[in-house]
Amino acid sequence: MKLRVALAQVNPTVGDLVGNAALIKDGVAAAAAQGAQIAIFPEMVLTGYPVEDLALRPSFQQASRAALAKLATEIDHSIVAIVGYLDQVVTTEGAGKPQNKVAVISGGEVKASYAKCHLPNYGVFDEYRNFAPGDETLVVRIHGVDVGIAICEDLWIDGGITAQLAARKPGLVIVPNGSPYERNKDDIRLSLVTGRARQAGAPLVYVNMTGGQDDLVFDGDSIVVNAAGDVIARAPQFEDGIMLVDIDMATRTSTPDVIISDDEVSLERTLVPGIAHRLGDEEEIWNAIVVGLRDYVAKNGFTSVLVGLSGGIDSALVAALAVDALGPDRVHGVGMPSKYSSDHSLADARQMAANTGLRFRVVEIQKMVDAYIQELSLTGLAEENVQARVRGTTLMGLSNQEGHLVLATGNKSELACGYSTLYGDAVGGYAPIKDIYKTDVWALSRWRNQVAREAGETPPIPENSITKEPSAELRPDQKDSDSLPEYEILDRVLKAYVDDDLGRDALIAAGFDKELVMRVIGLVDRAEYKRRQYPPGTKVSQRAFGKDRRLPMTSKWREL
Amino acid sequence: MKLRVALAQVNPTVGDLVGNAALIKDGVAAAAAQGAQIAIFPEMVLTGYPVEDLALRPSFQQASRAALAKLATEIDHSIVAIVGYLDQVVTTEGAGKPQNKVAVISGGEVKASYAKCHLPNYGVFDEYRNFAPGDETLVVRIHGVDVGIAICEDLWIDGGITAQLAARKPGLVIVPNGSPYERNKDDIRLSLVTGRARQAGAPLVYVNMTGGQDDLVFDGDSIVVNAAGDVIARAPQFEDGIMLVDIDMATRTSTPDVIISDDEVSLERTLVPGIAHRLGDEEEIWNAIVVGLRDYVAKNGFTSVLVGLSGGIDSALVAALAVDALGPDRVHGVGMPSKYSSDHSLADARQMAANTGLRFRVVEIQKMVDAYIQELSLTGLAEENVQARVRGTTLMGLSNQEGHLVLATGNKSELACGYSTLYGDAVGGYAPIKDIYKTDVWALSRWRNQVAREAGETPPIPENSITKEPSAELRPDQKDSDSLPEYEILDRVLKAYVDDDLGRDALIAAGFDKELVMRVIGLVDRAEYKRRQYPPGTKVSQRAFGKDRRLPMTSKWREL
Repeated sequence: MKLRVALAQVNPTVGDLVGNAALIKDGVAAAAAQGAQIAIFPEMVLTGYPVEDLALRPSFQQASRAALAKLATEIDHSIVAIVGYLDQVVTTEGAGKPQNKVAVISGGEVKASYAKCHLPNYGVFDEYRNFAPGDETLVVRIHGVDVGIAICEDLWIDGGITAQLAARKPGLVIVPNGSPYERNKDDIRLSLVTGRARQAGAPLVYVNMTGGQDDLVFDGDSIVVNAAGDVIARAPQFEDGIMLVDIDMATRTSTPDVIISDDEVSLERTLVPGIAHRLGDEEEIWNAIVVGLRDYVAKNGFTSVLVGLSGGIDSALVAALAVDALGPDRVHGVGMPSKYSSDHSLADARQMAANTGLRFRVVEIQKMVDAYIQELSLTGLAEENVQARVRGTTLMGLSNQEGHLVLATGNKSELACGYSTLYGDAVGGYAPIKDIYKTDVWALSRWRNQVAREAGETPPIPENSITKEPSAELRPDQKDSDSLPEYEILDRVLKAYVDDDLGRDALIAAGFDKELVMRVIGLVDRAEYKRRQYPPGTKVSQRAFGKDRRLPMTSKWREL
Repeated sequence: MKLRVALAQVNPTVGDLVGNAALIKDGVAAAAAQGAQIAIFPEMVLTGYPVEDLALRPSFQQASRAALAKLATEIDHSIVAIVGYLDQVVTTEGAGKPQNKVAVISGGEVKASYAKCHLPNYGVFDEYRNFAPGDETLVVRIHGVDVGIAICEDLWIDGGITAQLAARKPGLVIVPNGSPYERNKDDIRLSLVTGRARQAGAPLVYVNMTGGQDDLVFDGDSIVVNAAGDVIARAPQFEDGIMLVDIDMATRTSTPDVIISDDEVSLERTLVPGIAHRLGDEEEIWNAIVVGLRDYVAKNGFTSVLVGLSGGIDSALVAALAVDALGPDRVHGVGMPSKYSSDHSLADARQMAANTGLRFRVVEIQKMVDAYIQELSLTGLAEENVQARVRGTTLMGLSNQEGHLVLATGNKSELACGYSTLYGDAVGGYAPIKDIYKTDVWALSRWRNQVAREAGETPPIPENSITKEPSAELRPDQKDSDSLPEYEILDRVLKAYVDDDLGRDALIAAGFDKELVMRVIGLVDRAEYKRRQYPPGTKVSQRAFGKDRRLPMTSKWREL
């Protein structure tokens, strides 16, 4: 028998119970209007995800429960909705333990619920901190089909709750997710989904959310596979929407915990499923950052952003991303040349503005810089840094005056090495490219320009910003290469050390020069305090700076 | 029979395997010289604690194991040393899982080891992330006494590993700890220690470390109780040292896993144990902040600090703490009056310098402020903030020029409400009073002055700084009370909301005015992004901002 299943790949907002409930209601209505029997929403869609320590707050737990109860009465009664929410459970250890659950809603009430059993507590996840685990499978019968439910991490654990679920022989497995984007994670996800469907001997529906939440972005990429593990439908990456799929499934294969409906249905006209075009590597990362930035701006009530445009590649890339996220009218650029700026700095910044249509102005900083230098007798590094800090103060002043969110333009190579000025170029509410190594900054810029050329549009990023030698321009003829190894080699060492956590010996064994390794490691380890005060930005790698990599600031450990 | 036990209440440094090993060697030698049979060190003393994600790094795991093996051969062979370290275990799930362990060292080798079974993963702790739990008790026989070992959190869990250990009837229980200071935690600890000793029917030795590590400070407070739960010795809070205690214990009560020595000993002359004077509330907090600051400075290689002295109470308190931590020669104060500063601002700052002997200078900021205001046409809040940011840039410029660590002077009430300027008064490498509410800022200041008076010394903090009405002085006649409720009432709401996690309804039920509650909650929730970029500072409360309270920046949840 075929059932029509709606995969609601939606973008909830953390804490917005009313807005998220409306999103769910609309999704259910759209699914029902198109003849679906089941509408499946992502993990904790009602509260948004991840809620972090909000989960621990009894008032929030109660509000989520109340919102769910209200929602159940309000959504279309003819359809079964699978809705993630935060529950509060009474255990033998006391009242009020939070659980990450999904409710099965039908006929105006919650008919059953399932608590996530495997709680991720690595990388960016703190779920062992925030939730009490469940320990039971759930199978509900819907139109004669015995539907098993798992949540996100449940799927990733071999021999865990999904093995128990498989043993119950469900006719369909449903998996709501809050699975953040990481480069190449979609490939891993697919093979996981495929494997679990085969293990269960049933089709599997994987529903993931979209949208940005602080430093995470969710890429959607919802998937339906049949019992043999073949992909029969796959939703677009990073796009909101409801995907309807008619799925063949066996009936009455198990002993359900709850029977919601036992009548079989037949679909009048079955839909042809689609498999969305997969994004290329650069396109995927570009979309991740655009969505992460767009949602940070929108969900925090900003309408515009402000970027210092140095004429260099980092700020040009950030501006191009912002223009794609928000449109050129909502992107404000400021050129802030100093006496050490080259002629091309301002010219390239102006070119960027001309290419994209962003709003551009120039502020002269020399008067402020001179005032500090005279008053404080600054020299050397202190003089270099004061220029960056005058720019930071200028951006924040304009932000306070005009209401823009300031974007920090630092890349991952800089953050790794501490090659930035605290309260200078590091100021901002969001740092879009903080998880992008410098070599990838160039690659993304070239890719974006190429896309524009292929579409017959003006490439946003000035060619000179891409090709010129990188410089902070804080002293005469300064080049990044005065302080740092060449980025080609630096980034390879950084990826191995930061993303892959290799130690000194492993790095040397991988073929890197010993002296270089020791120099780079020393830079990274000593810059932890700077990273702690850096703005948030979209995670795209396997290990981003921030809650993904928690290291002490005070540490005498040197891999030396 | 009595054994002489040395409680090594020492201050290790995270990552300093060589330095910590030397500390342990010296401690063992001192204990042996004074006739001890057992020397007990804190949890993970060899690596320092907490090491956070360093625990996950194979190179660090291996370095800890190698350092332990080397240490075993180097320390006095006649004594048993109990030494915390990081181990790397091979499990069925793969090689290289980190464990938080203690080694029992004797005769030049590691005779046994115990892995922590209960891993705290709440508050500031991420141990479920960083370690694989152990699952077995350990009992070793030392001079005929069957000694059971537990580590820190093991002690806190009812019905857990210590219950299993109690069932094995040890003659002595040893508990190495890395237990961070929290206000009033010492009382809870004592009753816990007492209860577990009674449960085991054996004396219990609780050894905690001292010293600061980023935002944590360890208060020592090592304890020995007898089998009846009576305290027989207690070490001073916040002081390093080795406490020797002769403890009566029964022999051959259990079946040990390892026999290290079965010969009984008799002590020639037994020691009279001491119970250290307990610090009062303010004294305890004062010491916590002084030690936290002193160690952040020293362990990060700084020798001096720089504080902006506004003449207000917050910066005066921070300066007084810094003088106590480092001595007046290593504390540099800067007065940075603007046109909105009152006459008393500079006078009170000068008085502070005169009272303490700290190094003081004045920098005129008006020229820099005017340059920004003219160049950027700043008004209102933007003009207010630029003054704070010029001060921030000034402090950072002097820091870069002269090498001081800048101290941020914000208190917990300000942080809670976002009543500070990002990159302005919020700049700094360390923020000593970020976990102190404003009302406690006054209380601590009064207490410190009183201590000085009682000792016949000059009170450090100018009376006028304590008694004047708080003002940021960023516009004419500005008062904190223009923007915030009176601190007396504000702090009570904040404590209930932040420290105790009460929701709106619970706050109103507790008797707070509804409108006030909603106003305060709104302020706190909207300021999360500012707190994320704030410097670290010593945790003294049950719930400090930072890793103790992890909330999303992007959140539409309002307790309204």
